[in-house]
Amino acid sequence: MPRWESDAQGRLERAALDLFETHGFDRTSVAQIADAAGLKERSFYRYFPDKREVLFAGGEIEAHLVEQVEAADPGLAPIDVLLCALGSAEGLLRPRGYLRRRGRVIAANPALAERDLIKLADIAEALAPALERRGVDPGTARFLVDVVLAIHRRAVSRWLAEENATLAELMAEATAELRAAMAAPPRTSPGPAEDGGPGSS
Amino acid sequence: MPRWESDAQGRLERAALDLFETHGFDRTSVAQIADAAGLKERSFYRYFPDKREVLFAGGEIEAHLVEQVEAADPGLAPIDVLLCALGSAEGLLRPRGYLRRRGRVIAANPALAERDLIKLADIAEALAPALERRGVDPGTARFLVDVVLAIHRRAVSRWLAEENATLAELMAEATAELRAAMAAPPRTSPGPAEDGGPGSS
Repeated sequence: MPRWESDAQGRLERAALDLFETHGFDRTSVAQIADAAGLKERSFYRYFPDKREVLFAGGEIEAHLVEQVEAADPGLAPIDVLLCALGSAEGLLRPRGYLRRRGRVIAANPALAERDLIKLADIAEALAPALERRGVDPGTARFLVDVVLAIHRRAVSRWLAEENATLAELMAEATAELRAAMAAPPRTSPGPAEDGGPGSS
Repeated sequence: MPRWESDAQGRLERAALDLFETHGFDRTSVAQIADAAGLKERSFYRYFPDKREVLFAGGEIEAHLVEQVEAADPGLAPIDVLLCALGSAEGLLRPRGYLRRRGRVIAANPALAERDLIKLADIAEALAPALERRGVDPGTARFLVDVVLAIHRRAVSRWLAEENATLAELMAEATAELRAAMAAPPRTSPGPAEDGGPGSS
């Protein structure tokens, strides 16, 4: 059984999600979460600083991403370094079923949605300096991180919906989608010029 | 004199920024801001719901962007619709000097930095449906919005540093930068193969 399935932290995360879904985030207490997980309330605080944080476990993902960026082949282009790092983190993600339910609970609670934004910004702020340490200038580093996080967001939303594709495959697909959107030449005026052509206006 | 320079809202924004810089965000009250702007405290609340919000005026920018997306030439590619809309909003921005100081105050205050993230997410959530109304599917719409907001962020940081370029020019420059980063063919192993070439590993 994978570690997350059996350990206290995983039990707390699943119990919290069950309670948030059933009673709502605001009407669920840390004591209830601990109780439902078969633990004492003080054990909760060994794993999470507060009730919100129980849905945002995964500090190990940020550390993993930074490590991947630092360890990447020096010949790899900066954008590919980021794409590889983010595509490689699939094994650290919680199961799809849990993440789908978690996404719905977060979307329904402004306080949780805010926390989600902050977590994403934290990841961007950790990844950009890791790229700078490879010689990328700060402005470009942050720009590429923002773009690759957009690609990642697109890929994750498909990964949650499809059971048979890896995150790395879906990131490659989203990258190709973006490349196509950006490569399209400017279109000329659509259809026949009914007003007498471009010169007439 | 442009409207923002003379009106009550502008006076409140500038007074708040002065006080936040001098005394800190936490140690500045709404009464002090109103007083410094030569207004009564209750006038403050005609313009802003709270003290944080005084740095995030500009709901008119979101409405402008949505309008631009809806009114764009039907023949324009979705990504170009977004690039044009965001590049066209320069006239609605506060002066560079104000925005540079504002950026420093926001970066120094977690509560303001959070509000900044939420405002950006609100803009993304307003722009994506506007693109959907042009026939773009929801997943692609949100993806393109996220990418164009990354381009915009890159362009704005340069726009704040340079006095002689328009936002639209800097967005075109950032778009070209991204296109180049994405078009680069995968590099092969750097330098001579000291280990006997790719087949030996």
